[in-house]
Amino acid sequence: MSPKITGELLRQLRQAMRNCKYFSEPIQAYIVPSGDAHQSEYIAPCDCRREFICGFNGSAGTAIVTEQHAAMWTDGRYFLQASQQMDNNWTLMKMGLKETPSQEDWLISILPENSKVGVDPWIIAADQWKNMSKALTGAGHSLVAVQDNLIDAVWMERPERPSTQLRALGLDYTGMTWQDKITVLRAKMTERKITWFVATALDEIAWLFNLRGADIEYNPVFFAYAIVGMNTIRLFVDLKRLYDPALRNHLQLDSPSKPELSIHTFPYESVYTELQAICAALSPKDKVWICDKASCALTQVIPKAHRTPIPYTPLCLAKAVKNATEIQGMKMAHIKDAVALCELFAWLEKEIPKGTVTEISAADKAEELRSQQRDFVGLSFPTISSVGPNGAIIHYRPLPETNRTLSMNEVYLIDSGAQYVDGTTDVTRTVHFGTPSAFEKECFTYVLKGHIAVSAAVFPNGTKGHLLDSFARAALWDSGLDYLHGTGHGVGCFLNVHEGPCGISYKTFADEPLEAGMIVSDEPGYYEDGSFGIRIENVVLVIPTKPKYNYRNRGSLTFEPLTLVPIQVKMMNTELLTQKERDWVNEYHRKCREVVGAELERQGLTLVQSDSFTQEN
Amino acid sequence: MSPKITGELLRQLRQAMRNCKYFSEPIQAYIVPSGDAHQSEYIAPCDCRREFICGFNGSAGTAIVTEQHAAMWTDGRYFLQASQQMDNNWTLMKMGLKETPSQEDWLISILPENSKVGVDPWIIAADQWKNMSKALTGAGHSLVAVQDNLIDAVWMERPERPSTQLRALGLDYTGMTWQDKITVLRAKMTERKITWFVATALDEIAWLFNLRGADIEYNPVFFAYAIVGMNTIRLFVDLKRLYDPALRNHLQLDSPSKPELSIHTFPYESVYTELQAICAALSPKDKVWICDKASCALTQVIPKAHRTPIPYTPLCLAKAVKNATEIQGMKMAHIKDAVALCELFAWLEKEIPKGTVTEISAADKAEELRSQQRDFVGLSFPTISSVGPNGAIIHYRPLPETNRTLSMNEVYLIDSGAQYVDGTTDVTRTVHFGTPSAFEKECFTYVLKGHIAVSAAVFPNGTKGHLLDSFARAALWDSGLDYLHGTGHGVGCFLNVHEGPCGISYKTFADEPLEAGMIVSDEPGYYEDGSFGIRIENVVLVIPTKPKYNYRNRGSLTFEPLTLVPIQVKMMNTELLTQKERDWVNEYHRKCREVVGAELERQGLTLVQSDSFTQEN
Repeated sequence: MSPKITGELLRQLRQAMRNCKYFSEPIQAYIVPSGDAHQSEYIAPCDCRREFICGFNGSAGTAIVTEQHAAMWTDGRYFLQASQQMDNNWTLMKMGLKETPSQEDWLISILPENSKVGVDPWIIAADQWKNMSKALTGAGHSLVAVQDNLIDAVWMERPERPSTQLRALGLDYTGMTWQDKITVLRAKMTERKITWFVATALDEIAWLFNLRGADIEYNPVFFAYAIVGMNTIRLFVDLKRLYDPALRNHLQLDSPSKPELSIHTFPYESVYTELQAICAALSPKDKVWICDKASCALTQVIPKAHRTPIPYTPLCLAKAVKNATEIQGMKMAHIKDAVALCELFAWLEKEIPKGTVTEISAADKAEELRSQQRDFVGLSFPTISSVGPNGAIIHYRPLPETNRTLSMNEVYLIDSGAQYVDGTTDVTRTVHFGTPSAFEKECFTYVLKGHIAVSAAVFPNGTKGHLLDSFARAALWDSGLDYLHGTGHGVGCFLNVHEGPCGISYKTFADEPLEAGMIVSDEPGYYEDGSFGIRIENVVLVIPTKPKYNYRNRGSLTFEPLTLVPIQVKMMNTELLTQKERDWVNEYHRKCREVVGAELERQGLTLVQSDSFTQEN
Repeated sequence: MSPKITGELLRQLRQAMRNCKYFSEPIQAYIVPSGDAHQSEYIAPCDCRREFICGFNGSAGTAIVTEQHAAMWTDGRYFLQASQQMDNNWTLMKMGLKETPSQEDWLISILPENSKVGVDPWIIAADQWKNMSKALTGAGHSLVAVQDNLIDAVWMERPERPSTQLRALGLDYTGMTWQDKITVLRAKMTERKITWFVATALDEIAWLFNLRGADIEYNPVFFAYAIVGMNTIRLFVDLKRLYDPALRNHLQLDSPSKPELSIHTFPYESVYTELQAICAALSPKDKVWICDKASCALTQVIPKAHRTPIPYTPLCLAKAVKNATEIQGMKMAHIKDAVALCELFAWLEKEIPKGTVTEISAADKAEELRSQQRDFVGLSFPTISSVGPNGAIIHYRPLPETNRTLSMNEVYLIDSGAQYVDGTTDVTRTVHFGTPSAFEKECFTYVLKGHIAVSAAVFPNGTKGHLLDSFARAALWDSGLDYLHGTGHGVGCFLNVHEGPCGISYKTFADEPLEAGMIVSDEPGYYEDGSFGIRIENVVLVIPTKPKYNYRNRGSLTFEPLTLVPIQVKMMNTELLTQKERDWVNEYHRKCREVVGAELERQGLTLVQSDSFTQEN
């Protein structure tokens, strides 16, 4: 991997920073965050501005360019990759290390007095703007909004913003019409005395209108904004996308059933001026909901007296609790996904001894097998297919220059998932095709104990997911081990594989309580640097349960695994498992055989597979 | 318990709210927090303003009075007590229940437009002021500081502020001179480029100067403020208290060893004007540290540009990590305390069959036995001595009108502790002197499993206490049970029995990581309303431990119980315990017998006690 040559680009960017065409005065520093105008986790090529300017293409990182310096902040997952992808015009700022200054502190330490720090207000979130602005102002500088993006100004062959075909989802996939979703949203608005709601997150807009796109790889979303009032609905999207009569019919564009359910469509770019017009007509008591992670540009259109920022929008909360149709779809998607993965493992057992399977070819095979399943749309994230030491790189993605061959001697970790029209999957299995070492088995077993402790946990209604995080770590902690990532994230239904507002992590405490119908991942791990990585991940559904007692009638919850892929028994040191844990494993495998077995049969597939996976223990 | 009659008082308070003598305009609501000007948890009688106005005397609660309404917010510990102590002029607001509005939401829902909400700026913390003010302003109201306290204005026979004798502690109790503590504090200030530190918490000031008082019952503190600069120390305290030559010598008031260690003393009340004078002379870059929980009044003296609010002061953090002398003292205090409690339980076994022991007399006996131990100063909190249904009232305190007789038929819960010059104790035991029911034993055993899960937990350095909270609940949750309080709090060394910045709770996420030398309580419980209460509480010391591995050289921690009082085996359903848990109980009882037995012997005491307590299981 050779670094990107950035000298000339930086020269041009600095020229733009001095050029009063873009801002009324020269600016002394320019911040390039990694997001798009919707604060998406995955972004389209036209939005990869931070990658364009510095060469680093990881999912998280912020670049800052001053007259003299160029620096890029990223976290531990990406230290190696960033150092390989950036040339020496750039300083790598390793976040999380004690000696690394924050962006604010660094700027304050190097800027001349009374400096202007520029940023594109569309790609910085309102809460980040606020913090950065406060720190800079406190030190005599100012954060300024530069309306034209300066990276775009020097990016000659910047790709177009995608405008892929939209897909309307019927009731059999969504379980609820977009009209009913609007009605529920308005009821929430009435309850909180809110008159307008501005939707900026792409998955929330896709969910609200029961539409899907393909504008961003892995995420079936499309570039849009929506503004919902008590009597009007405004949708901002490339209008060409709405020529299709079926879509027009789905959205009732030409013959709305009721006036308050008529959708007014506007070009994507006009959201700013339309929101301005709405705000100009607000009554003194009118309140506008907008997520505090929405762009600074759009947030600041709303006068402060009318603005009600919220950490999670009502759409985010509603989307997280899946209805019966969505749950049924997610179950089907996971059964199909399990068929593909069982085929993969059977194929790997046969092919690995030949020495021809690599991380990349195994990932390709997994994709090929998934693509044969009904309603397959694409992958839900880049497959992590890693052998031996590569498995210890938590967010590894095999590249030609790192590609290892699968063998009988090393642990193999595959974390993969797909988008089907009926649901989204995300599963990690860690397997060995020869004889795992005692230490590998020991670590695997601790991770399994943690996985089971979460999956089988019973907890009262109202419990937040982060309170379950330590259950996943207790067995590892007991032996002095740990893993440096969270235990679980929300999973969308034919939507983003990572979604809020729930999760299982020691880090986030702004999560909302778990509720029946929510779907999260359960994925503890252990990573031995330079040697191997272990992770066991199921997607699990929050379900009500009835333990012996019912304290204060609060009701209890637990999890039901949606993922039904065997967990390799060969990797377990069963002596370290309690009887309850053994029962859990055996019951899980019984269910895999029953449900996935029936589907394999239905599809006319017979797998020759060793019993290393599901033998009773 | 009959409620306080508050009609006339409320009439007078509302008159004061309308009276422009106190504030330039009438105010529509008045907030009465429960704290004093130091945000103390326990307060002196002169500061019991919330109790005075509504009758509820629990430790936590906020009253709000408007022209039409009077409401009081408290948490689950106090629902019953508050409902009994308040007359029907008052609405009890049960915090933590979904249907209960926050104080802000409630005010906004009932206040007429553009209302003024008053509060005494000395008894509201700066962070609470900020949140409340923001919420009210957002709804068109305003929060206003009323300098004269309106409760004091209607409180005819308000007690004087106490000014008890001060006690200087030598190195053999503190392990560190106050001069060294000042030096360490200044080093922390230098590190963070801070020029002034304002100490407002009474226990921090007592700890810093190695002084103790008795101004507040149960807490060996004294009313004072301190302001520490790089070259000066200002102590604000009733100056009469410093006439004693021994104290003058301890503080080196007449012959300071070095100029920068000379203490300038000022009257308690002059802190406001002195801080004003200091702030008037600040250089542009000077920064002042003050806890964000300090009073709004004092905080706002510091100009915003110079103010650096912190959630925990360096004194709070330093005080939490006990040094070797303090740990030794705490251990001795707990051994003496265990002697007294073993005597109590032996006495109870003998006396209960006679039918003459009540909750109050048992509590008195416990105090009498403790007072016979060396260096006893007083209790560390009001003894919770509760029989049967009274045990289900989490913060019950026996009163003549609720006093029950201990019997062979009901569960007895005693939560008690003492201040000794060498340390502070806090222990809860739940016992039965006849035959407990199967359900009582079942619940006791779940609580015990939770207690052991925390006490025996191994966790990496850097782990925050709140991550351990769910360990205490898992066994209860599994059966659909729970308890509505945190699992543990920091414990001072001959200081407050509750102290920050660490704890074990699902509620606080601002806690600091646990460190070797910190001391916390481990006290899960279960409360069956109208029937019984169970709690098992030890004070435990955080100690380093060496599990099998040492991931990333982070090191691991665990707990060592300081409390050494047997846990009644008769209450356990040992079939529900794992072998590991049985081993823990047996080893704990072995240590109790060895250590407390030796002390009993040393003191020439022989106890006749049944083996219901410590038999092997």
